[in-house]
Amino acid sequence: MSDKETSIEQAKFQPICMKQRAMAQAKTWILRHHFDGFPKDSDFELKVEQIPEPKDGEILLEAVFLSVDPYMRPYSRARMKEGDVMIGTQVAKVIQSKNPGFPVGSHVVSRHGWRTLTLSDGAEIRKLSGWPQDCPMSLALGAIGMPGLTALYGLEEVCQLRAGETLLVNAAAGAVGTVVGQIAKIKGCRVVGCAGTDAKVSYLKDLGFDHVFNYKTITSLEEALKAAAPDGYDCYFDNVGGSFSSVAIPQMKLFGRIAVCGGISLYNDTTPQTGPFLQLQMVFKQLKMEGFLVGRWEHKNEESLPRLISWMKEGKLKCKEHVTTGFENMPAAFMGMLKGDNIGKAVVKV
Amino acid sequence: MSDKETSIEQAKFQPICMKQRAMAQAKTWILRHHFDGFPKDSDFELKVEQIPEPKDGEILLEAVFLSVDPYMRPYSRARMKEGDVMIGTQVAKVIQSKNPGFPVGSHVVSRHGWRTLTLSDGAEIRKLSGWPQDCPMSLALGAIGMPGLTALYGLEEVCQLRAGETLLVNAAAGAVGTVVGQIAKIKGCRVVGCAGTDAKVSYLKDLGFDHVFNYKTITSLEEALKAAAPDGYDCYFDNVGGSFSSVAIPQMKLFGRIAVCGGISLYNDTTPQTGPFLQLQMVFKQLKMEGFLVGRWEHKNEESLPRLISWMKEGKLKCKEHVTTGFENMPAAFMGMLKGDNIGKAVVKV
Repeated sequence: MSDKETSIEQAKFQPICMKQRAMAQAKTWILRHHFDGFPKDSDFELKVEQIPEPKDGEILLEAVFLSVDPYMRPYSRARMKEGDVMIGTQVAKVIQSKNPGFPVGSHVVSRHGWRTLTLSDGAEIRKLSGWPQDCPMSLALGAIGMPGLTALYGLEEVCQLRAGETLLVNAAAGAVGTVVGQIAKIKGCRVVGCAGTDAKVSYLKDLGFDHVFNYKTITSLEEALKAAAPDGYDCYFDNVGGSFSSVAIPQMKLFGRIAVCGGISLYNDTTPQTGPFLQLQMVFKQLKMEGFLVGRWEHKNEESLPRLISWMKEGKLKCKEHVTTGFENMPAAFMGMLKGDNIGKAVVKV
Repeated sequence: MSDKETSIEQAKFQPICMKQRAMAQAKTWILRHHFDGFPKDSDFELKVEQIPEPKDGEILLEAVFLSVDPYMRPYSRARMKEGDVMIGTQVAKVIQSKNPGFPVGSHVVSRHGWRTLTLSDGAEIRKLSGWPQDCPMSLALGAIGMPGLTALYGLEEVCQLRAGETLLVNAAAGAVGTVVGQIAKIKGCRVVGCAGTDAKVSYLKDLGFDHVFNYKTITSLEEALKAAAPDGYDCYFDNVGGSFSSVAIPQMKLFGRIAVCGGISLYNDTTPQTGPFLQLQMVFKQLKMEGFLVGRWEHKNEESLPRLISWMKEGKLKCKEHVTTGFENMPAAFMGMLKGDNIGKAVVKV
């Protein structure tokens, strides 16, 4: 950000800051009840929290964009208790600062959850100081953030995808899937994707996916997967799990690699779903299946984010967002994303 | 083999050879019907085959020990048609030779299946010329052969087992399992094994396994696995698959590695068994599961077999065999092995 921009931001900031001083109140979304099956409105509660003045070393952050992601559903039980603020990442602006590392008007990515204002000591936040001017900051929550890195590491570190290979990706129109397919194309691979609406299928074809189908309107997933890649799949980037995978895994080639990124078909189960055991497929095709979380390669992010940005600037990585406006609509945006309403990254603009 | 031994073998051989010349007949076991569920006597047929005189470059092999292995059950459908000789490996003696590379009286490991005599051009057979004199040749079918190498590669190449880690192995008293546990001990690991009889449990304790239980007499596999390793398992060498694995995999530690060697609980299914989907376990614990076949590392066998022999000579790798006598008993030996009658490697002595 240029000095000029900073000064504009500071100029704009003065009156807001005065208001904040008078009545610094954060809106937060609380996990009222642990989800039981698919989340519902009554599982969430909007609360107001008084925010004290920043002390030395502290900053006050104002959310600009908030992320809603599939992982929040399974993590809600693993990492939260009832009454906690919903977990999540946001792009925020520094609106008060007693920390010279974070000037007023600068932007950060923070992991402070579903809240409009956050008092922070600067830990667990990442500055967006080198962010390209022509790139929307919301992309720091999507293709140039956690979902983009997830796609990159899943393909490079887990699948070890090589040029000329055939890749299958499901939930392909989602925040991660859209990037997976595009990176695989950049790497010279053949990409088969599936998604749940014709509009998504059409968008993915526009992105350059080689073969895309709507898994909700086909008569046989097995036949559709075979038709799309008669010789089978070298790699399978799995965002869905469950019975989709039980059909997909037998379509792998010898020595196929399966990157298990998520299991959106399983997150809302109240009783565990079951399917055929896959061990014999694993043995006789010598398949490798690996689950992963993006944080494992955090030490590589500094070199990976510029790669994603370059691809975007070269027009090889297109980024679509599904924007919901209004902090009060966060639960609806989250539930909509779980239902697959979004094409590309689902974000909430405050 | 010393010259002296060779000459003794040749002296013994002369009368047998004369008999062979008069009426060289091989007994063979044929797959009469593809197995439907657990194999039964009527699926096999004993046939006699006339064997012609060896031509230049050919040798006549007489089976000494034949192997019965779990893989034969799933491979019967994948690699054989009804009427084929049952697949398998044997230790055989050269009883006629028109190939200077294979002198009469020398021994080989051959992959010619369930047959007493084989005419061979020397392809697909491995000489046992460097075999240590104090080591029974039948071990070339077990701990110093395919099952031993399977254990070694599963631990080193797939699990990448490190000193101090905790390993789980099932079917632990089998040909592969006994070697898995012992190599893991050599590598400084803690080994938990399970088997299906108290005699097997007792034998595995004698071998130095740290914790062994009889999975048939416990009330809860989950509780038994937790009690044996309260902090979980780094590695899991899986010979069983199916519902055992569905209980075992949630007991893995973060970044656990699962080597899927076989799935003996699944081989005889007529309709596929089902169990809970494992994708969420895979993701949130970042587990890696890989199926493998021993032949993948065949290029390493020449350096690996001497390692197994050294461990055996040092007393660190003990080898037990379950010997059935009589070629006519091969189906019974095979079915008995599938039922778990054996402790250690099941072989048939002709």
